[in-house]
Amino acid sequence: MATVQESDVLKLIQDRVLTKDPRVLLGPGDDLAAIRSPAGTLLAGVDQIIDGLHVLADRVPWNRIGQKAVHRSASDIAAMAGSPLATLASVVLPAGTSPANVELLCAGLHEAAEAVGAPLVGGDVAIHLSKDHPLTLSVTVLGEATKHGPIERRGAKAGDHLYVTGTLGGSLMPDGTGHHLDFYPRVAEALELLDALGDDLHAMIDISDGLGRDAGRVASASSLQVRIDTAAVPCRVGASIEDALRDGEDYELLCAVAPNAAVPTDLGTGDPRCPISLIGVFSAMPDSDTRRVLLEHPDGSTTDGTHLGWDHG
Amino acid sequence: MATVQESDVLKLIQDRVLTKDPRVLLGPGDDLAAIRSPAGTLLAGVDQIIDGLHVLADRVPWNRIGQKAVHRSASDIAAMAGSPLATLASVVLPAGTSPANVELLCAGLHEAAEAVGAPLVGGDVAIHLSKDHPLTLSVTVLGEATKHGPIERRGAKAGDHLYVTGTLGGSLMPDGTGHHLDFYPRVAEALELLDALGDDLHAMIDISDGLGRDAGRVASASSLQVRIDTAAVPCRVGASIEDALRDGEDYELLCAVAPNAAVPTDLGTGDPRCPISLIGVFSAMPDSDTRRVLLEHPDGSTTDGTHLGWDHG
Repeated sequence: MATVQESDVLKLIQDRVLTKDPRVLLGPGDDLAAIRSPAGTLLAGVDQIIDGLHVLADRVPWNRIGQKAVHRSASDIAAMAGSPLATLASVVLPAGTSPANVELLCAGLHEAAEAVGAPLVGGDVAIHLSKDHPLTLSVTVLGEATKHGPIERRGAKAGDHLYVTGTLGGSLMPDGTGHHLDFYPRVAEALELLDALGDDLHAMIDISDGLGRDAGRVASASSLQVRIDTAAVPCRVGASIEDALRDGEDYELLCAVAPNAAVPTDLGTGDPRCPISLIGVFSAMPDSDTRRVLLEHPDGSTTDGTHLGWDHG
Repeated sequence: MATVQESDVLKLIQDRVLTKDPRVLLGPGDDLAAIRSPAGTLLAGVDQIIDGLHVLADRVPWNRIGQKAVHRSASDIAAMAGSPLATLASVVLPAGTSPANVELLCAGLHEAAEAVGAPLVGGDVAIHLSKDHPLTLSVTVLGEATKHGPIERRGAKAGDHLYVTGTLGGSLMPDGTGHHLDFYPRVAEALELLDALGDDLHAMIDISDGLGRDAGRVASASSLQVRIDTAAVPCRVGASIEDALRDGEDYELLCAVAPNAAVPTDLGTGDPRCPISLIGVFSAMPDSDTRRVLLEHPDGSTTDGTHLGWDHG
């Protein structure tokens, strides 16, 4: 029997779910949707966390699960260089969930949402019929675009430089912990970058599925190719360059910037501030080349990086 | 081992998830949250449909499941007398779901969202690890309040009349079909009513859990008691007065209206137009009475209707 894969479903949604409503500036396919309202542009998106797929609920305190869900959604706000506005969460609890775990989950959602500036304004709760059905958490985030509008994935130009914030790789430790639980979304850094660069910030995405795959999304949306100098990619302590290219769940920002722009050397209010590194350059897509991402290695060789990372399939 | 009930969790959320963010005009606890933006008031809420709890996915075509999810969320927009803006949906599919069912679900979501004027702008899809894990659908709806602001549950005044649109009861047929799948949200009717009544429309809710329980919510939020004349309650064809008081999933509007207001006799663009019926009156809460809803029966007797309906417990 034919069964569906996530990637099939996402394609189906992007193809079928088209609206002619003029208020919808951006539908499915970017980090967030953008909807025009009289005063500006509303940003909205939804992400899910499911036990066994995105987190191991028996190994992680449940406040951390709530926090991760909010941070991941807020990272999409950062990827559009938007300002957080509000969060909504719906949860399906396995039958027999302890009140202590529910309290932890609620506290994690609430505290993280407050901290990122998108307070939890609504929610829904249901309880599974079985204790064997997985914890499912769906988080919707709302934001507002700045006067520059949302920074989309498309918009990179040939000659643009590719920058990345922070360090990459090794997000998921073998015991289930690691950066994928600990990260803080780069909302402030994105707004500072937009403030510094203005219209020279051409395209942006947050790295959820891996540097190769997410750089490929920017290149593809912009109808370009991007070459990445692997020696320039900043690796997290303990992570190899292979990890950095492939692991995903970094939630760092990847941006296409005009080549003559004055890019800050670091961003944000952290101590130390968040570094930002030049790692590549966009160019026109060569004829008869289907590779969106070329990895240039120190030995002079070049490999295809387009599909490095998590495949939602 | 202590385990949680939905009602416990909802109480927990309302108690704990409080924000001091001045943009949040209404947090959890009403039909939708209300968030202030420069141009007006944004409405937002989320609802879930889970196979086995809210729908029987093996008995219902999946486009109807998508449609129900959108209509139920849009009914919350109606309950605030808001205008629909956009919809987001996240879905977890059982492993092995057929592409045909996914197409139906997407089509149902998309077409219903377009029809109610809240196009589907974003979504997320995941696939369960097991075919035995239930289809889970979470729908977030966004809307805008009119210049009168959102019509909340609180706001009824002593002496206000209680009106209900349409007919009640018998929403769920024994075979799983019925009004709970077929209803169309009363968005247009709510806006027409607000237009006719203006500031005389004091409070509103949509009936999801049953007339008794939802009338009790308006009374409780307004610190009042409401008396319902059971002989005046409009019953759906085939439904008894007991069904009408208790069944829920009517998605009709229940409103508190100033007693001197000129209420239209019918509403909307349907043929015939949607009737609206006077069924009760609000009064101050008597001392030493905890009953929010009094049912006055034709034989002169009075019973407590506060808890008639679905208990989310």
